[in-house]
Amino acid sequence: MPATPHLVIDLTIAQANIDRTAAWAKKAKLTLRPHVKTHKSPEIARLQRRAGAVGITVATIGEAEVFAEARFDDLFIAYPLWPDNPRRARLINLTSGADVRVGFDSLESATRLVGTGVRALVEVDSGHHRTGVLPAEAGALAAAAMEAGLDVIGVFTFPGHSYGPGRLKAAAVDEAKALRVAVDSMAAAGVPARVVSGGSTPSLTATGKGLTESRPGVYVFNDAQQWELGSCGPEDIALTCYATVVSHAGGRLVLDSGSKILGADRPTWTSGFGRLLDHPEARLVLLSEHHGVAEFPSGEKLPALGSIVRVVPNHACTAVNLVGSYVVKEGDRTVATWAVEARGRND
Amino acid sequence: MPATPHLVIDLTIAQANIDRTAAWAKKAKLTLRPHVKTHKSPEIARLQRRAGAVGITVATIGEAEVFAEARFDDLFIAYPLWPDNPRRARLINLTSGADVRVGFDSLESATRLVGTGVRALVEVDSGHHRTGVLPAEAGALAAAAMEAGLDVIGVFTFPGHSYGPGRLKAAAVDEAKALRVAVDSMAAAGVPARVVSGGSTPSLTATGKGLTESRPGVYVFNDAQQWELGSCGPEDIALTCYATVVSHAGGRLVLDSGSKILGADRPTWTSGFGRLLDHPEARLVLLSEHHGVAEFPSGEKLPALGSIVRVVPNHACTAVNLVGSYVVKEGDRTVATWAVEARGRND
Repeated sequence: MPATPHLVIDLTIAQANIDRTAAWAKKAKLTLRPHVKTHKSPEIARLQRRAGAVGITVATIGEAEVFAEARFDDLFIAYPLWPDNPRRARLINLTSGADVRVGFDSLESATRLVGTGVRALVEVDSGHHRTGVLPAEAGALAAAAMEAGLDVIGVFTFPGHSYGPGRLKAAAVDEAKALRVAVDSMAAAGVPARVVSGGSTPSLTATGKGLTESRPGVYVFNDAQQWELGSCGPEDIALTCYATVVSHAGGRLVLDSGSKILGADRPTWTSGFGRLLDHPEARLVLLSEHHGVAEFPSGEKLPALGSIVRVVPNHACTAVNLVGSYVVKEGDRTVATWAVEARGRND
Repeated sequence: MPATPHLVIDLTIAQANIDRTAAWAKKAKLTLRPHVKTHKSPEIARLQRRAGAVGITVATIGEAEVFAEARFDDLFIAYPLWPDNPRRARLINLTSGADVRVGFDSLESATRLVGTGVRALVEVDSGHHRTGVLPAEAGALAAAAMEAGLDVIGVFTFPGHSYGPGRLKAAAVDEAKALRVAVDSMAAAGVPARVVSGGSTPSLTATGKGLTESRPGVYVFNDAQQWELGSCGPEDIALTCYATVVSHAGGRLVLDSGSKILGADRPTWTSGFGRLLDHPEARLVLLSEHHGVAEFPSGEKLPALGSIVRVVPNHACTAVNLVGSYVVKEGDRTVATWAVEARGRND
């Protein structure tokens, strides 16, 4: 057992999450292409593949390189890359051994993707307002990119506005509508969309008609955000941070797990900076780099100094990116230590 | 030049920050013991030592081990450690080659520090309400710890409530008052406080009477929080993230620098998720793991797709912890790449 704070995966729960989502995708007749930015580990991606995932989604060329090295050969970089010359060279290297798809939302980037061997998907904005063109503009962009020589095979979106209480259904409706409008726009422009890709963990079960592919990420581990959104229960949380109680200052619980292991993600709608798995009424009210301060309901006895508690990070993906490896358990038994192989691969 | 996003240190500015603060401490007759959790690099700590720092501050035993390995022999772990047996063994190993001081705020932890060879400082709460006993309780705790066999040499606090607009002076007043009360309480209990330690970057220049030592961290790099608090100007910012413009979706600037390199720190009083050094009117209004979305004043031309801009993270300490190394520049010239040697050493 390493010193606290450290991250622990409950493999039994992770496997159940993987199996449940794979079964859902099969029933929904959707190709499952999990986003591996959540776990950054070929070990976990292999479990997802064994359960039926046809390929994986990554956010960066660096992540694609790590997974290609681990013999994943069907990769979608769901990001509007800027393919400068060094990135073009890296894409050419990747496509020599794998089917590589990338996103684009401008003709400038599409033009630079030509000749790299990738296939491409237009990104549309379905309401998250981050990247992507308007759905009705997808056809014109796709046609211009085809004209420039790019192999455009479809359209994708990320309904990230599903992250908020009560928003998941509306986000799933927006997603299906945006993709439908985009598909029609592309058809009218002479570019059939063979791949229609969406998905976010909160909106998953509300996914509408017309998609061919789903790309959830967080579902494999879940986290305090999903718990608070109701897209999982505490029994579905596979990732926790084991932390030591170092102080009872001010009648509160002070843990050695701070933002340098939990991440500082704190959307305004969350109840705090993370949750305690075994103390669901407690709230992490203050987070410094190496301190997590939890308030307990008045009258409730605090866990003893020196005891170890399990903290649920708000955002699994950023917590995982803060460690070199995680401890893997089945029940109380430690079965492995897995490297976070794509840690820090922002490039 | 590595691929974007990556962190860059302007060494000329960092050196000026180091020299200015060293001169301030000398004039204020304070021992300077910089907190190295900001940079996590022995290279930078050596510059601080050369400018007059008598020792360094760290947050964890793991950080202490990295700097001891790099031949720093005067270390203060400014944290209320829980010294279980493995940590006791590591402290004993550290004290074999260095003067090691640690914090405590409970008699339970003090008792477990006995026999490790460390010297200890009582932590008091000066208003940040994170850890530490009340100042008037310092004497009783110090005397009990001495009685248990611990070598108690002083008192420390962190006036972290200086982080907020207009709060720095009041926080410095609180700090000086809390330390004075604690020193008196310890004297009355027969434990002279030879070391009286405080300091935060925002409150530095307002430091009150009675301290013997200051432990600022962020001042070496500065960041968007310090810029917005007015404790530095943009010309004092030595750490930036070089990011590529990947999209102009929605008429906004989308950069490839997200929370996985900038950190997600976003105190409510900040104007956004970070700033752009060369576009002070722009605001980072949305931050995902690999996207930073900036709004520009209406009518202002956006930097071109594919161009590189310099992003100032909200919090230097957490950004640095996200990378394996940073590029070091003097003006436009790259002079080195320094490893973030204590990255992820939360243990």
